[in-house]
Amino acid sequence: MDSESRDLKPVFEPRSVAVIGASNNPTKWGCIILANIVSYGFRGKIYPVNPSEEKILGIKAYPNVMSVNDEVDLAVIARPAEAVPQHIEECAEAGVKAVIAIAGGFRETGKEGEELEKESVRRARKGGLLLVGPNTMGVYSASVNLCALMPPVSPRKGEVALISQSGNIGTNLLGFGSTVGVGFNKFVSSGNEADIECYEYLAYFGSDPNVKVILLYLEGVRSGRKFMRVAEEVSEKKPVIAYKSGRTQAGVRAAKSHSGAMISPNEIVKAVFKQTGIIQATTVNEMLDLAKSFVNLPLPKGKRVGILTWGGGYGVVASDVFEEAGLDVVSLSDDTIRKLSMLLPPYWSKGNPVDLVGVFDRSIQPSCLDIIAGDLNVDIVAALGFIVGSGAFAGAFGGQTHSKEGKNIVKEWIAKADEESMEYIVKLISKYGKPLVAVTATTDMEVVAKAAEKGVVVYPTIETAASVLSKMVQYAKHKKRKEEGRL
Amino acid sequence: MDSESRDLKPVFEPRSVAVIGASNNPTKWGCIILANIVSYGFRGKIYPVNPSEEKILGIKAYPNVMSVNDEVDLAVIARPAEAVPQHIEECAEAGVKAVIAIAGGFRETGKEGEELEKESVRRARKGGLLLVGPNTMGVYSASVNLCALMPPVSPRKGEVALISQSGNIGTNLLGFGSTVGVGFNKFVSSGNEADIECYEYLAYFGSDPNVKVILLYLEGVRSGRKFMRVAEEVSEKKPVIAYKSGRTQAGVRAAKSHSGAMISPNEIVKAVFKQTGIIQATTVNEMLDLAKSFVNLPLPKGKRVGILTWGGGYGVVASDVFEEAGLDVVSLSDDTIRKLSMLLPPYWSKGNPVDLVGVFDRSIQPSCLDIIAGDLNVDIVAALGFIVGSGAFAGAFGGQTHSKEGKNIVKEWIAKADEESMEYIVKLISKYGKPLVAVTATTDMEVVAKAAEKGVVVYPTIETAASVLSKMVQYAKHKKRKEEGRL
Repeated sequence: MDSESRDLKPVFEPRSVAVIGASNNPTKWGCIILANIVSYGFRGKIYPVNPSEEKILGIKAYPNVMSVNDEVDLAVIARPAEAVPQHIEECAEAGVKAVIAIAGGFRETGKEGEELEKESVRRARKGGLLLVGPNTMGVYSASVNLCALMPPVSPRKGEVALISQSGNIGTNLLGFGSTVGVGFNKFVSSGNEADIECYEYLAYFGSDPNVKVILLYLEGVRSGRKFMRVAEEVSEKKPVIAYKSGRTQAGVRAAKSHSGAMISPNEIVKAVFKQTGIIQATTVNEMLDLAKSFVNLPLPKGKRVGILTWGGGYGVVASDVFEEAGLDVVSLSDDTIRKLSMLLPPYWSKGNPVDLVGVFDRSIQPSCLDIIAGDLNVDIVAALGFIVGSGAFAGAFGGQTHSKEGKNIVKEWIAKADEESMEYIVKLISKYGKPLVAVTATTDMEVVAKAAEKGVVVYPTIETAASVLSKMVQYAKHKKRKEEGRL
Repeated sequence: MDSESRDLKPVFEPRSVAVIGASNNPTKWGCIILANIVSYGFRGKIYPVNPSEEKILGIKAYPNVMSVNDEVDLAVIARPAEAVPQHIEECAEAGVKAVIAIAGGFRETGKEGEELEKESVRRARKGGLLLVGPNTMGVYSASVNLCALMPPVSPRKGEVALISQSGNIGTNLLGFGSTVGVGFNKFVSSGNEADIECYEYLAYFGSDPNVKVILLYLEGVRSGRKFMRVAEEVSEKKPVIAYKSGRTQAGVRAAKSHSGAMISPNEIVKAVFKQTGIIQATTVNEMLDLAKSFVNLPLPKGKRVGILTWGGGYGVVASDVFEEAGLDVVSLSDDTIRKLSMLLPPYWSKGNPVDLVGVFDRSIQPSCLDIIAGDLNVDIVAALGFIVGSGAFAGAFGGQTHSKEGKNIVKEWIAKADEESMEYIVKLISKYGKPLVAVTATTDMEVVAKAAEKGVVVYPTIETAASVLSKMVQYAKHKKRKEEGRL
């Protein structure tokens, strides 16, 4: 861990949590957050705090945090901004180690709020407390089943950590992650970062052995140098993937950072990220595709791609898109061509992409994939249409002329074949130690999530595949350079 | 219609269709295509042709096309390449006006195939026949309910025409269009374009009053000058949207165009498209987003965008992405700010994007949208999170802790609110004559399709919205320039 970064264990692995402002009124955040903590099954003790209730959600309540007769590691303050400094003081008195200040109404709203924020930080630091936020949607930690979040999100568990400077985008990514099969180990909506800044979360997740990949949604970074140093250190150990907004005047205005110095045009973001080894996500959602890929795939040893396609047109598109992304749609070895020619009709393309020219026999596809993956010229294998998904077909068969029963039969048949294909992909990845990915035009997120559970990466578009794979190649190169530099 | 382009009515509005090579064997294309024509409900007469069957799919069969005792406008030849020239000759003798040669095995396979192709064209032209293909997946026409396609696709009806040089991509777009609510009026898998070339289809669809938008998937264009002239003419009347592959060496290799001259790097594609007014789709799937937008929305009068967002973070991202796409996230008028301030909490952002700062009351959103759309500074309105969709929420509520019944209640509640929002959007579009679009993070294609049916455009990502809207702005400018030039 970075020497200047504090140990954030009380935030992410508390043994006990108090909810200050807990409530039985389901329209209050103090009720919703407590309900989320309880229903997700937090492994430690829970202490609702509210002077006017005896029990909240059936749990014994305390008039204030000092009256809790136990060590409290973490307190969630679900009270208005004006009340926060006072509650922090009480937490300090009670020996609480960390607080999460949910409410907005601080620096982001003007002078008065800024004062409140400064006062909160002052009291937290004086009391030796860690302060998350203010103006945050909360934290999540799979290690202790802590789901202290405002929105009713139920994250899937996994090996990804996410730091988000937007609560909305962060919790949406958690929710969308469930849909597409990306699991999280830790999450923080870092809010105004009045006390704990981005770089401290990054350092903490960097040395957390349960975290394999770190995602960042950034609007601005305060301690730039520290951030860069930590990012450089951490990204040597594990991939750090960031989406940086505030790249235009309009974006900065929207982020309400009134300092003109805070605009970071994309060229500058790119340069800083390149230097520190941070992987830049092109879109917010691409963060999930990148996360899934780094979690499930071995790093590519080079940029040479072998493509298997069921349809010629998509092979052409993939060749263009992969090349334009900086990958190399390489010539296959003579041996590979010879082996494939024994399986495919005489009029096959005899080149890369390997076009199955509409051969219906699905049993040929795995063998072709095996041959391509075994080619020494190939670092990465992309299979188009190998995982089908029922989405495209649901559309195709969606007309008036096809029956619901018939559609379900087709759907189940496709799902079964897809499952076999997934198992085959997993086998080939471990056989050759190369990233092997699938691209499908499906809108069926079930197949995407099921694939992710099995450790198989399915991209919804060729463009996503190309962008993610080229970033994996860049990261692998960066890491290798760093390792060689250290010798 | 272009003077050099022929009338393709026999292909797209035949009164009678013969299927040569029709079969009762369901694994044969001659069975599958006939079944598609029959089951989609072709409005004209159907004549199966096969010398060894009396009836096919219960319909009287004929030993050859000459023995059909009626005028045959169109013949689908579902027979191997070698047999095609002979069948064309017979069609000419029988007075057939157009043929579709399905089989591959022509120019794309080498010398011998090339000869067969030339011979087919020679006989077609001698007999005064139009020839679609060869090496095609067929045609579709909503005007006469003709679905003469190889794959079991059941297109949604609408106002889009599609010309595709890849049968796979073309028919996938038809299928995927059903899923996302894009309806088609006409489609051709143009195959090898041995006789009818791309520009003739383009000219024909250009003067078809049932076609509002034309999509092109292009790998290469043979008669470049004619294509450019027709494209320029047509795109003055209606939007022509194209995805051009073969932009890299690898892409051209995959397209099996062995002529080095055929590579068209993206800069050249861009320049040609700009000159002719063709709108370049960034991805294959973006063609559908563009089609939907041009069909349903008025053209923007300028590039100034007003944004309504439920979550601040997405407002920041949208500001960046829209500006980077060349749109202008404009300052709202004082009057607009004043009106919005009467509806929103005092701490609202007072700028564009209009951030609803987490206000739960959904009834406020329509009023805000109305105020933004009425601002004279605003040409385009984008509403983020206004249409919710159940996809994101299905993920959010997808955890172990939430019941299936509970999820369904939430889903239905969202669906109902979304429907009201859609109706409101339609009203505002007609009230102000400005494009008003929604962006949602949903993966729920039902809501996207339902929206399209109502004439509402919902984009799955902010990036798609920005790209499509900026292309609409460009097209509107091109059209205006052309119109002014003609004065």
